[in-house]
Amino acid sequence: MDAPTQDELSQRRCKPCEGGVPALSREEAEATVRNVEGWMLDSDAKRITRSWTLADFMAGIDFFNRVAAIAEEQDHHPDLHLEGYRKVTIALSTHAVKGLTENDFILAAQINQVPVRVKG
Amino acid sequence: MDAPTQDELSQRRCKPCEGGVPALSREEAEATVRNVEGWMLDSDAKRITRSWTLADFMAGIDFFNRVAAIAEEQDHHPDLHLEGYRKVTIALSTHAVKGLTENDFILAAQINQVPVRVKG
Repeated sequence: MDAPTQDELSQRRCKPCEGGVPALSREEAEATVRNVEGWMLDSDAKRITRSWTLADFMAGIDFFNRVAAIAEEQDHHPDLHLEGYRKVTIALSTHAVKGLTENDFILAAQINQVPVRVKG
Repeated sequence: MDAPTQDELSQRRCKPCEGGVPALSREEAEATVRNVEGWMLDSDAKRITRSWTLADFMAGIDFFNRVAAIAEEQDHHPDLHLEGYRKVTIALSTHAVKGLTENDFILAAQINQVPVRVKG
Protein backbone atom coordinates (compact mmCIF):
# COMPACT_ATOMS: atom_id res chain seq x y z
CA MET A 1 0.00 0.00 0.00
CA ASP A 2 0.94 3.65 -0.42
CA ALA A 3 1.36 5.02 3.08
CA PRO A 4 1.48 8.79 3.55
CA THR A 5 4.92 10.32 4.11
CA GLN A 6 5.97 11.99 7.37
CA ASP A 7 5.66 15.40 5.66
CA GLU A 8 2.17 14.63 4.45
CA LEU A 9 1.09 13.35 7.86
CA SER A 10 2.51 16.38 9.67
CA GLN A 11 0.31 18.68 7.57
CA ARG A 12 -2.93 16.82 8.26
CA ARG A 13 -5.32 17.38 11.15
CA CYS A 14 -6.56 14.68 13.50
CA LYS A 15 -10.18 13.77 12.79
CA PRO A 16 -12.63 13.88 15.71
CA CYS A 17 -13.02 10.38 17.12
CA GLU A 18 -16.72 11.09 17.75
CA GLY A 19 -17.32 11.13 13.99
CA GLY A 20 -15.97 7.59 13.73
CA VAL A 21 -12.39 7.20 12.60
CA PRO A 22 -11.30 3.96 10.88
CA ALA A 23 -8.85 1.64 12.60
CA LEU A 24 -5.72 0.79 10.62
CA SER A 25 -5.05 -2.82 9.75
CA ARG A 26 -1.71 -4.32 10.80
CA GLU A 27 -0.51 -3.96 7.19
CA GLU A 28 -1.48 -0.29 7.06
CA ALA A 29 0.15 0.38 10.45
CA GLU A 30 3.35 -1.40 9.41
CA ALA A 31 3.56 0.57 6.18
CA THR A 32 2.87 3.90 7.87
CA VAL A 33 5.21 3.50 10.86
CA ARG A 34 8.13 3.04 8.45
CA ASN A 35 7.57 6.61 7.26
CA VAL A 36 7.59 8.18 10.72
CA GLU A 37 11.15 8.47 11.99
CA GLY A 38 11.99 6.70 15.24
CA TRP A 39 8.54 5.34 16.06
CA MET A 40 8.01 1.64 16.69
CA LEU A 41 4.92 -0.49 16.38
CA ASP A 42 3.91 -2.66 19.33
CA SER A 43 3.79 -6.38 18.56
CA ASP A 44 -0.03 -6.35 18.62
CA ALA A 45 -0.06 -3.39 16.17
CA LYS A 46 -2.31 -1.42 18.51
CA ARG A 47 0.14 1.26 19.70
CA ILE A 48 3.23 3.17 18.54
CA THR A 49 5.98 4.44 20.82
CA ARG A 50 9.16 6.49 20.56
CA SER A 51 11.85 7.20 23.18
CA TRP A 52 14.36 10.04 23.44
CA THR A 53 17.32 10.50 25.78
CA LEU A 54 17.38 14.24 26.43
CA ALA A 55 19.90 16.61 28.00
CA ASP A 56 18.29 16.64 31.44
CA PHE A 57 15.04 16.58 33.37
CA MET A 58 13.90 20.06 32.33
CA ALA A 59 14.54 19.24 28.68
CA GLY A 60 11.95 16.49 29.19
CA ILE A 61 9.48 18.88 30.83
CA ASP A 62 9.97 21.46 28.05
CA PHE A 63 9.34 18.72 25.50
CA PHE A 64 6.15 17.67 27.32
CA ASN A 65 4.86 21.25 27.22
CA ARG A 66 5.42 21.51 23.47
CA VAL A 67 3.86 18.11 22.85
CA ALA A 68 0.90 19.06 25.04
CA ALA A 69 0.25 22.18 22.92
CA ILE A 70 0.06 19.99 19.81
CA ALA A 71 -2.11 17.42 21.58
CA GLU A 72 -4.58 20.07 22.68
CA GLU A 73 -4.68 21.66 19.24
CA GLN A 74 -5.33 18.27 17.59
CA ASP A 75 -7.54 17.05 20.45
CA HIS A 76 -5.59 13.79 20.50
CA HIS A 77 -3.55 12.96 23.57
CA PRO A 78 -0.52 10.70 23.96
CA ASP A 79 0.75 8.89 27.03
CA LEU A 80 3.88 10.59 28.39
CA HIS A 81 6.68 9.07 30.46
CA LEU A 82 9.79 10.74 31.89
CA GLU A 83 12.04 8.25 33.69
CA GLY A 84 15.60 8.07 34.98
CA TYR A 85 16.06 11.86 34.95
CA ARG A 86 16.12 12.35 31.16
CA LYS A 87 14.54 9.48 29.24
CA VAL A 88 11.23 10.37 27.61
CA THR A 89 8.86 7.84 26.07
CA ILE A 90 5.69 8.79 24.23
CA ALA A 91 3.00 6.27 23.31
CA LEU A 92 0.11 6.80 20.93
CA SER A 93 -3.08 4.88 20.27
CA THR A 94 -6.73 5.71 19.67
CA HIS A 95 -8.97 4.81 22.57
CA ALA A 96 -12.15 4.89 20.44
CA VAL A 97 -10.94 2.01 18.23
CA LYS A 98 -8.74 0.31 20.86
CA GLY A 99 -5.93 0.46 18.31
CA LEU A 100 -4.30 2.73 15.77
CA THR A 101 -5.81 5.30 13.43
CA GLU A 102 -4.23 7.83 11.12
CA ASN A 103 -4.62 10.32 13.99
CA ASP A 104 -1.81 8.57 15.86
CA PHE A 105 0.57 8.90 12.94
CA ILE A 106 -0.40 12.54 12.36
CA LEU A 107 0.48 13.30 15.98
CA ALA A 108 3.71 11.26 15.76
CA ALA A 109 4.78 13.20 12.66
CA GLN A 110 4.02 16.52 14.36
CA ILE A 111 5.86 15.46 17.56
CA ASN A 112 8.87 14.66 15.36
CA GLN A 113 8.98 18.34 14.38
CA VAL A 114 9.38 19.51 17.98
CA PRO A 115 12.97 20.60 18.70
CA VAL A 116 14.47 18.60 21.57
CA ARG A 117 17.47 19.41 23.76
CA VAL A 118 19.82 16.43 23.78
CA LYS A 119 23.15 16.08 25.58
CA GLY A 120 25.61 18.40 23.80
CA MET B 1 10.55 3.81 65.18
CA ASP B 2 9.55 7.48 65.18
CA ALA B 3 9.10 8.42 61.55
CA PRO B 4 8.92 12.12 60.65
CA THR B 5 5.46 13.52 59.92
CA GLN B 6 4.36 14.80 56.50
CA ASP B 7 4.62 18.37 57.81
CA GLU B 8 8.14 17.79 59.09
CA LEU B 9 9.23 16.18 55.84
CA SER B 10 7.77 18.95 53.71
CA GLN B 11 9.93 21.51 55.53
CA ARG B 12 13.20 19.63 55.06
CA ARG B 13 15.58 19.92 52.12
CA CYS B 14 16.88 16.97 50.09
CA LYS B 15 20.50 16.18 50.90
CA PRO B 16 22.95 16.02 47.97
CA CYS B 17 23.42 12.39 46.97
CA GLU B 18 27.10 13.09 46.27
CA GLY B 19 27.65 13.58 50.00
CA GLY B 20 26.37 10.07 50.66
CA VAL B 21 22.81 9.74 51.82
CA PRO B 22 21.78 6.72 53.90
CA ALA B 23 19.38 4.15 52.45
CA LEU B 24 16.27 3.50 54.53
CA SER B 25 15.64 0.01 55.80
CA ARG B 26 12.34 -1.66 54.95
CA GLU B 27 11.14 -0.91 58.49
CA GLU B 28 12.04 2.77 58.18
CA ALA B 29 10.40 3.01 54.75
CA GLU B 30 7.23 1.29 55.98
CA ALA B 31 6.98 3.62 58.98
CA THR B 32 7.62 6.76 56.90
CA VAL B 33 5.28 5.97 53.99
CA ARG B 34 2.38 5.73 56.43
CA ASN B 35 2.87 9.43 57.21
CA VAL B 36 2.83 10.60 53.59
CA GLU B 37 -0.74 10.67 52.31
CA GLY B 38 -1.55 8.53 49.29
CA TRP B 39 1.92 7.13 48.61
CA MET B 40 2.51 3.40 48.42
CA LEU B 41 5.64 1.37 48.97
CA ASP B 42 6.71 -1.11 46.28
CA SER B 43 6.90 -4.70 47.47
CA ASP B 44 10.72 -4.61 47.41
CA ALA B 45 10.68 -1.39 49.50
CA LYS B 46 12.90 0.35 46.95
CA ARG B 47 10.41 2.82 45.49
CA ILE B 48 7.29 4.78 46.39
CA THR B 49 4.49 5.75 43.99
CA ARG B 50 1.28 7.76 44.01
CA SER B 51 -1.41 8.12 41.35
CA TRP B 52 -3.97 10.86 40.75
CA THR B 53 -6.95 11.04 38.39
CA LEU B 54 -7.06 14.67 37.32
CA ALA B 55 -9.62 16.80 35.48
CA ASP B 56 -8.02 16.48 32.06
CA PHE B 57 -4.76 16.24 30.14
CA MET B 58 -3.67 19.84 30.77
CA ALA B 59 -4.29 19.42 34.49
CA GLY B 60 -1.66 16.68 34.30
CA ILE B 61 0.77 18.91 32.40
CA ASP B 62 0.23 21.76 34.87
CA PHE B 63 0.90 19.35 37.72
CA PHE B 64 4.11 18.15 36.03
CA ASN B 65 5.33 21.74 35.71
CA ARG B 66 4.77 22.42 39.39
CA VAL B 67 6.37 19.13 40.43
CA ALA B 68 9.33 19.89 38.13
CA ALA B 69 9.92 23.22 39.86
CA ILE B 70 10.15 21.41 43.21
CA ALA B 71 12.36 18.69 41.74
CA GLU B 72 14.79 21.24 40.34
CA GLU B 73 14.87 23.21 43.61
CA GLN B 74 15.57 20.05 45.61
CA ASP B 75 17.80 18.55 42.90
CA HIS B 76 15.91 15.28 43.23
CA HIS B 77 13.89 14.05 40.26
CA PRO B 78 10.89 11.73 40.15
CA ASP B 79 9.65 9.54 37.31
CA LEU B 80 6.50 11.04 35.77
CA HIS B 81 3.73 9.25 33.88
CA LEU B 82 0.59 10.69 32.28
CA GLU B 83 -1.61 7.98 30.78
CA GLY B 84 -5.16 7.58 29.52
CA TYR B 85 -5.68 11.36 29.14
CA ARG B 86 -5.76 12.25 32.83
CA LYS B 87 -4.13 9.66 35.05
CA VAL B 88 -0.84 10.79 36.58
CA THR B 89 1.56 8.47 38.40
CA ILE B 90 4.72 9.69 40.12
CA ALA B 91 7.46 7.34 41.31
CA LEU B 92 10.34 8.18 43.63
CA SER B 93 13.55 6.40 44.48
CA THR B 94 17.19 7.36 44.97
CA HIS B 95 19.45 6.17 42.19
CA ALA B 96 22.63 6.53 44.30
CA VAL B 97 21.47 3.92 46.82
CA LYS B 98 19.30 1.89 44.42
CA GLY B 99 16.49 2.28 46.92
CA LEU B 100 14.81 4.79 49.19
CA THR B 101 16.28 7.65 51.22
CA GLU B 102 14.65 10.40 53.23
CA ASN B 103 15.00 12.55 50.09
CA ASP B 104 12.22 10.55 48.44
CA PHE B 105 9.83 11.17 51.29
CA ILE B 106 10.75 14.86 51.46
CA LEU B 107 9.85 15.21 47.78
CA ALA B 108 6.66 13.14 48.23
CA ALA B 109 5.55 15.41 51.09
CA GLN B 110 6.25 18.51 49.02
CA ILE B 111 4.43 17.08 45.97
CA ASN B 112 1.44 16.48 48.25
CA GLN B 113 1.27 20.25 48.81
CA VAL B 114 0.84 20.99 45.11
CA PRO B 115 -2.77 21.92 44.25
CA VAL B 116 -4.24 19.59 41.64
CA ARG B 117 -7.25 20.10 39.39
CA VAL B 118 -9.53 17.11 39.70
CA LYS B 119 -12.88 16.50 37.96
CA GLY B 120 -15.37 19.00 39.42
